Amino acid sequence: MQWVKGLGLGLGAAALLALGIILGHFAIPKKGDSPAPSISAPQDLDLELLESVMGQLDASRIREDLRELSREPHLASSPRDEALVQLLLQRWRDPASGLDSAKAFEYKVLLSFPSQEQPNSVDVVGSAGDILYSCHRSEENLTGEQGRPDVVPPYAAYAPSGTPQGLLVYANQGTEEDFKELQAQGIKLEGTIALTRYGGAGRGAKAVNAAKHGVAGVLVYTDPADINDGRSLPSETFPNSWHLPPSGVERGSYYQYFGDPLTPYLPANPSSFRLDLANVSGFPPIPAQPIGFQDAKVLLCNLNGSLAPTAWQGALGCDYRLGPGFWPNGDFPADSQVKVSVHNRLQLRNSSNVLGIIRGAVEPDRYVLYGNHRDSWVHGAVDPSSGTAVLLELSRVLGTLLKKGTWRPRRSIVFASWGAEEFGLIGSTEFTEEFFSKLQERMVAYLNVDISVFANATLRVQGTPPVQSVVFSAAKEIRSPGPGDLSIYDNWIRYFNRSSPVYGLVPSLGSLGAGSDYAPFIHFLGISSMDIAYTYDRSKTSARIYPTYHTAFDTFDYVDKFVDPGFSSHQAVARTAGSVLLRLSDSFFLPLNVSDYSDTLRSFLQAAQQDLGALLEQHSISLGPLVTAVEKFEAAATALGQYISTLQKDSADSLQVRMLNDQLMLLERTFLNPRAFPEERYYSHVLWAPRTGSTATFPGLANACSRARDTSPGSEAWAEVQRQLSIVVVALEGAAATLRPVADL
Amino acid sequence: MQWVKGLGLGLGAAALLALGIILGHFAIPKKGDSPAPSISAPQDLDLELLESVMGQLDASRIREDLRELSREPHLASSPRDEALVQLLLQRWRDPASGLDSAKAFEYKVLLSFPSQEQPNSVDVVGSAGDILYSCHRSEENLTGEQGRPDVVPPYAAYAPSGTPQGLLVYANQGTEEDFKELQAQGIKLEGTIALTRYGGAGRGAKAVNAAKHGVAGVLVYTDPADINDGRSLPSETFPNSWHLPPSGVERGSYYQYFGDPLTPYLPANPSSFRLDLANVSGFPPIPAQPIGFQDAKVLLCNLNGSLAPTAWQGALGCDYRLGPGFWPNGDFPADSQVKVSVHNRLQLRNSSNVLGIIRGAVEPDRYVLYGNHRDSWVHGAVDPSSGTAVLLELSRVLGTLLKKGTWRPRRSIVFASWGAEEFGLIGSTEFTEEFFSKLQERMVAYLNVDISVFANATLRVQGTPPVQSVVFSAAKEIRSPGPGDLSIYDNWIRYFNRSSPVYGLVPSLGSLGAGSDYAPFIHFLGISSMDIAYTYDRSKTSARIYPTYHTAFDTFDYVDKFVDPGFSSHQAVARTAGSVLLRLSDSFFLPLNVSDYSDTLRSFLQAAQQDLGALLEQHSISLGPLVTAVEKFEAAATALGQYISTLQKDSADSLQVRMLNDQLMLLERTFLNPRAFPEERYYSHVLWAPRTGSTATFPGLANACSRARDTSPGSEAWAEVQRQLSIVVVALEGAAATLRPVADL
Repeated sequence: MQWVKGLGLGLGAAALLALGIILGHFAIPKKGDSPAPSISAPQDLDLELLESVMGQLDASRIREDLRELSREPHLASSPRDEALVQLLLQRWRDPASGLDSAKAFEYKVLLSFPSQEQPNSVDVVGSAGDILYSCHRSEENLTGEQGRPDVVPPYAAYAPSGTPQGLLVYANQGTEEDFKELQAQGIKLEGTIALTRYGGAGRGAKAVNAAKHGVAGVLVYTDPADINDGRSLPSETFPNSWHLPPSGVERGSYYQYFGDPLTPYLPANPSSFRLDLANVSGFPPIPAQPIGFQDAKVLLCNLNGSLAPTAWQGALGCDYRLGPGFWPNGDFPADSQVKVSVHNRLQLRNSSNVLGIIRGAVEPDRYVLYGNHRDSWVHGAVDPSSGTAVLLELSRVLGTLLKKGTWRPRRSIVFASWGAEEFGLIGSTEFTEEFFSKLQERMVAYLNVDISVFANATLRVQGTPPVQSVVFSAAKEIRSPGPGDLSIYDNWIRYFNRSSPVYGLVPSLGSLGAGSDYAPFIHFLGISSMDIAYTYDRSKTSARIYPTYHTAFDTFDYVDKFVDPGFSSHQAVARTAGSVLLRLSDSFFLPLNVSDYSDTLRSFLQAAQQDLGALLEQHSISLGPLVTAVEKFEAAATALGQYISTLQKDSADSLQVRMLNDQLMLLERTFLNPRAFPEERYYSHVLWAPRTGSTATFPGLANACSRARDTSPGSEAWAEVQRQLSIVVVALEGAAATLRPVADL
Repeated sequence: MQWVKGLGLGLGAAALLALGIILGHFAIPKKGDSPAPSISAPQDLDLELLESVMGQLDASRIREDLRELSREPHLASSPRDEALVQLLLQRWRDPASGLDSAKAFEYKVLLSFPSQEQPNSVDVVGSAGDILYSCHRSEENLTGEQGRPDVVPPYAAYAPSGTPQGLLVYANQGTEEDFKELQAQGIKLEGTIALTRYGGAGRGAKAVNAAKHGVAGVLVYTDPADINDGRSLPSETFPNSWHLPPSGVERGSYYQYFGDPLTPYLPANPSSFRLDLANVSGFPPIPAQPIGFQDAKVLLCNLNGSLAPTAWQGALGCDYRLGPGFWPNGDFPADSQVKVSVHNRLQLRNSSNVLGIIRGAVEPDRYVLYGNHRDSWVHGAVDPSSGTAVLLELSRVLGTLLKKGTWRPRRSIVFASWGAEEFGLIGSTEFTEEFFSKLQERMVAYLNVDISVFANATLRVQGTPPVQSVVFSAAKEIRSPGPGDLSIYDNWIRYFNRSSPVYGLVPSLGSLGAGSDYAPFIHFLGISSMDIAYTYDRSKTSARIYPTYHTAFDTFDYVDKFVDPGFSSHQAVARTAGSVLLRLSDSFFLPLNVSDYSDTLRSFLQAAQQDLGALLEQHSISLGPLVTAVEKFEAAATALGQYISTLQKDSADSLQVRMLNDQLMLLERTFLNPRAFPEERYYSHVLWAPRTGSTATFPGLANACSRARDTSPGSEAWAEVQRQLSIVVVALEGAAATLRPVADL
């Protein structure tokens, strides 16, 4: 009480009262305030923590995880695939570095495998039925890993069984145009076997196009010109370089859609309704089989007929001819045929997704999903284990912070390891079907890292416009691997860039197709999604994809020696994805810049005006309403941006920010219309559904125009053009309405 | 300072300090608290304010508003309808009693009107084509109001033009069964005119069923047995009683779907794609015309043929015979025919919705919608002006509080006056199409008050289970009109009740069909919805509906003298609806009791087991997964209920409550599946879509079963049964998933 004495009484009383008031006001938290960090000073992204996470992401641990993940082949539903389910559960349940909880979700799905009793085969047979040449049934055992019994022989998943035999023709990439060209050249395709090369058309599409012209069977190979920059000698290929060996064969799914083929729109639970096989669509109509270029060379270089167009020529060291059949002076009698024997079996198999969650501290009902598939074709070191190794390292670092009690995200983080992706994004699709409403209401974004490193040159991101800004923010703060002291962003912009009317020169994001598990999230649920990887210097290689893709040569040593020695690119991807993940889960204001959609809409609109405007005018269809809708969106997005900056200035309470964040999170949903393209299974996003044409514009409008182009005015097809135009206009106006002040009429 | 002196210094200092601390803590609001009432002690429903609102809802003002609203006929898109748009805008923009803002939204929609040049007619014509009798073309001018030029003559909206002529048959209510019965009796229907009575089947359905049997034209009348409890003499009917006069004719829409017929799923904006008339479905296939029972009596009492079944007899004072044709000794020669001349015209007309909003103080992005249609067939005093008068009184009282600055709701309140409801819920449907995403994301509930008073006996509520509890809470606090001192709840339970396994005896809510503007909200958007009215004592009348429904006798005097003298029932509805509205907009915890869905699901399940179980077993389809799904829902709902009560105890912060409220608000959405019944336009709710059968169970399952019943095992129809079963199971499991703790895997 010493200090009190010095005060005069009256003054003292007043002062004491005042002091007390001050103490009472500032020193004691209001009851109403607790427990909520969301209420008092709202937690925002902690940059120091972000820095330390970046520092803890360890290249050598990624390397060790990759070694373990790719030690054995882990084809979907195989024993090793199941073992990896357990590995993931054990990691995510680890007391020192695990998540809050982890769980496996099993589905019963229809997969396709080659018969073990009756191996698929491709033979050249003489007129007497005698076998003159047999293609290799497996890849050459170059490293000891290709000889394992659990290496699935090359095959075309979901291709029907059958043993077609006929004269061989060469059909380039098996596109509709390619077969039209053969027809134009007067080549009779009925009953032939078409040899095609990977690229151009999807796997299944080659068989579909071929069947339309009466082709009886399809062979698919990888031309050294498309994958090896022309190299084809053993001395030039793996294990002597990263190039594809002559015996390498790309496996893959030939199913046209995605998701479990028997349960469209329904989760493949044991009790779920399953289509009768007779009613399943999307399987190849005729037998198909992939072969290596060593065998393709024997077939192709013996072909008869006229010379193939220059664009069809490849790097097998001979002139490619069209056939049909072999030339008299070659290795086979002219009347020799090719026999394709396919004995694939459809099987109902159990396949699991593994999910792990870190519960959000403030908004546990907001989910940031980070996923990759687990299943591979063979060892799958690059595809998908390079991504899974990054996933495990990221979950380890975050799990460790969590278990130490030093950190918990504002929003929930969900890690996912999908099953059976290689057969058609099956695990992720069944997941979205089972939890449709929950995910559509609560998912902030989906982050996919499948193949994390194709090559070491640069970052490559595919995504919808709202994720551009957060990826940029992350990439600017991380040092790029390799020489120089560039940020990942500054390195990236050197390889992929575009000039934005708003920002000037920026790295360009690719758009999302259906190449990996992001497809059901963006197309079916309307969740802002992205796919992140490190990739090639396109000036140094024209390879379609990394050379050993889907072969038995995609092994740990391949990655360790040729793809990313030192794993610095893996680390770069882990840091970029990790930074994006933390920014999405911890930022007070969601870092989704919806106004970046304006760029896209503007460019879609201009493309429509340039490429379709004249045609539409001829049919007196005006793009005016579309122009107005785009302008309304731009205006609403701009105004919302200004509102955000004012909110950021004068400390908004967490409920105000929640309302704003809901607008940002849900914008992508407003572009979804399940009635827009009912025939396009799962595709409901009116901006990103598949486009048939080359014009980068609104897909529904573009596709309807190309269907209507050759029909008479007033046809149903032209009515559909107008319907599609209205669908886009309504979607854009609806989107703008959700961006405007919430109490506006 | 006198009081201080008395204290010893030390003690005094301590006391002062303490006093100050106390003052400081409790007397000064924390800076962080403002501006958000959402943060400090969160505002909850203010019961005093609720009481005062109940007190201010004024019966005499409702009466005066009704007089003004029903002064002149206001058919959709008529000048008077437009004038009422202005009246609503003026009321809602009133500086002293208006809302924050109000706006009219205009659509261009396809309506149907009788031709003024060529009036529709129904005549008995002799063999020479001479007219022997003509039905009245308008209603008798009993009060001076029926003779106005703006009274639209009776007609069947959307019935096609045509002048069919043929022998008359009597087809009861024109159901499928009725026509089968006529066929069974050996009556040749080809080319006949079918006289049907209202009730049993929908208006359009009568024409559809008739056309299937070759009938050329349909007449529809209201039998005194169905509407007047048998009375038919002028002395017994309006203006001498509330009963329908002999000349009264029920108008109505004969369109089978709802929404603008030319723009399904698209808002009817000027630029929207419109179907070619040739492609429009849902219009009656043959001409139809409604007539009064005075004319029906002349036709029916002269019919020849065998006696109609007892159930088909009515109150026209003669034996009803089936025809075909007239009996020889009657008023007309036996070979006389009936000629129906319909000259309806389809026209594109402008129709507006009027929307007014009160911005929410805390959660402006949560909307409680309260609506009714504005358009009538003639004066529409009961339908819809009795509801609009209630709407205006409620918005006046709330608007006055708002403008005084004494109150602002926690959530936004949106008042809506829909256009062109009588033609097929057109205004409300176009609204849901235009703002689909915004409404689906943010709407808390939809409250519809169309006809507010059918009669004075009791409250009648239709709605989905989550609204039951809030309606009960409101009804318990309001005194019932009429003698006695019962609450509206206690009175209600005497007329409509059921025994709930959870609550025992409670008032029973009806389910929502498509009778008014709630249809697009519940079926198309999945918004928890309700319809509130006062209605009959069913022990005192068997009237299908109030007698002057859709006639020129539905006038202010009719309401004032016969329906609700004193307007106490109008006031009771205003109080009930107003209380529900305030509870939904102001309660901290949303008063939507999702666990009340368990009752419904359990009863649907039991009905399925009892009525379909055996049949399904024969086809080895198990209801096991459905049982499990219902149990999962029940468990999740119960657990959520417990979580809510804990939250309510220990003052949760507003973000926690927002997360919970989102679960409650969005539950209804989880039952929506746009791919479940693609052929049922707008119907996506897997629990409330139309059922063909009588079993109160899951509609998709029930309908699929009735289609499959007579097909062979393994048919497509039986596959559809299994698909529909899976659709329900997945919906229920998905719903349960959204009710479980948000961070559960």
